[in-house]
Amino acid sequence: MRHFEVEMNDLKKCLLDMSDLVQEMIKTTINGLVKRDLKLFDTVFCLEKEVNIQEIVIDDKCLKLMALNQPVGTDLRFITSAARISTDLERMGDEAVNISERAVNLIKYPELKPLIDIPKMSDIVQQMVTDSIKAFNTNDVELANSVLVKDDEVDNLKDTVFKDLKVYMTKSTEPDTIERAVDLMLVAKSLERIGDHATNISEDVIFMVHGKDVRHPRTCAAKTE
Amino acid sequence: MRHFEVEMNDLKKCLLDMSDLVQEMIKTTINGLVKRDLKLFDTVFCLEKEVNIQEIVIDDKCLKLMALNQPVGTDLRFITSAARISTDLERMGDEAVNISERAVNLIKYPELKPLIDIPKMSDIVQQMVTDSIKAFNTNDVELANSVLVKDDEVDNLKDTVFKDLKVYMTKSTEPDTIERAVDLMLVAKSLERIGDHATNISEDVIFMVHGKDVRHPRTCAAKTE
Repeated sequence: MRHFEVEMNDLKKCLLDMSDLVQEMIKTTINGLVKRDLKLFDTVFCLEKEVNIQEIVIDDKCLKLMALNQPVGTDLRFITSAARISTDLERMGDEAVNISERAVNLIKYPELKPLIDIPKMSDIVQQMVTDSIKAFNTNDVELANSVLVKDDEVDNLKDTVFKDLKVYMTKSTEPDTIERAVDLMLVAKSLERIGDHATNISEDVIFMVHGKDVRHPRTCAAKTE
Repeated sequence: MRHFEVEMNDLKKCLLDMSDLVQEMIKTTINGLVKRDLKLFDTVFCLEKEVNIQEIVIDDKCLKLMALNQPVGTDLRFITSAARISTDLERMGDEAVNISERAVNLIKYPELKPLIDIPKMSDIVQQMVTDSIKAFNTNDVELANSVLVKDDEVDNLKDTVFKDLKVYMTKSTEPDTIERAVDLMLVAKSLERIGDHATNISEDVIFMVHGKDVRHPRTCAAKTE
């Protein structure tokens, strides 16, 4: 195997390792919230440091691969996509940390209600992350497209969570209820963003395989009419 | 001037043009909110489409510059940074749209209170965006560093906004008050994220000039203790 191929395989392996860490972070933070287990959040905070280092290592590998091998076509698209994917993975890790920070606060109080639709949202989002990475690993455009479809489902669930929590807030003047409802909204918002990052990764996979940019529809319609 | 230099200057110009559009979006959305002027949000929604197209154009220029010229060193760092910066600019545009969407809802009701600290937050965030772009245009590492400092200020202001709004929510069982307070929280969160993106751009400028990655401190301290 040529040296370049060895390095490309190594880059792919690094990204898959990084994605394992990030998936572990998301799973652990939601487990901590559901099981009300404070210890688990420390695991998330520690994993974040590893993920941050991985992002820098991967970016460095991408730069070196480009500088030393002057790749073109599919190889160049793979490397630039890898750099973008590592950024999305790192931001997912940030959101897992944000969820943990809210959860540390939330589990000090009794449950507001069995977490509304948040566990359901989290299941779909975790599947999106797993599928987007699998699509990257196997160049599976169909699987990548399936992630894009799930993004709308997550957005709708987040809207439902917000609506339900606003009803709770309206019914109560307890500062604790407001505090917990706001924290749960922020958890839902972080899950939505993790879904957005999985969507970005899936768009990168489609670009990487087909060289076709599927971001952004290009029409301009006034939304306030 | 060599063809490569012409292309590099063109890439820089495209990024500066894109940043003008994004700054216009942020300014317009906040103006719309403060002046309660619905028309301005349509301007924001239209500008977003232009920004999205610019992102794709810039990414394409970056790929072509890499494929056809095999740049190394500072040139390679400039091109990879340009690609990252265009993504951050596009995400800023998304947040300006998110603010407009909240604002369309907010201005249907009387003001909750003169917008708490949101205009102040917005002034600092707009300055961060302007400075990060100026730092990119002039390779000014000192200016880039000043943006990183302002990020903490914005985070603290967002915390104050959240605290103030929670007090409002606790005092009222009116669904309208809860609705407006949640919308204002989301506006503050979007402003905070625009600040985060300006921070990312500033870190890219430092990396571009010095080749030194300033993201992420590398220690692991348990936060729940």
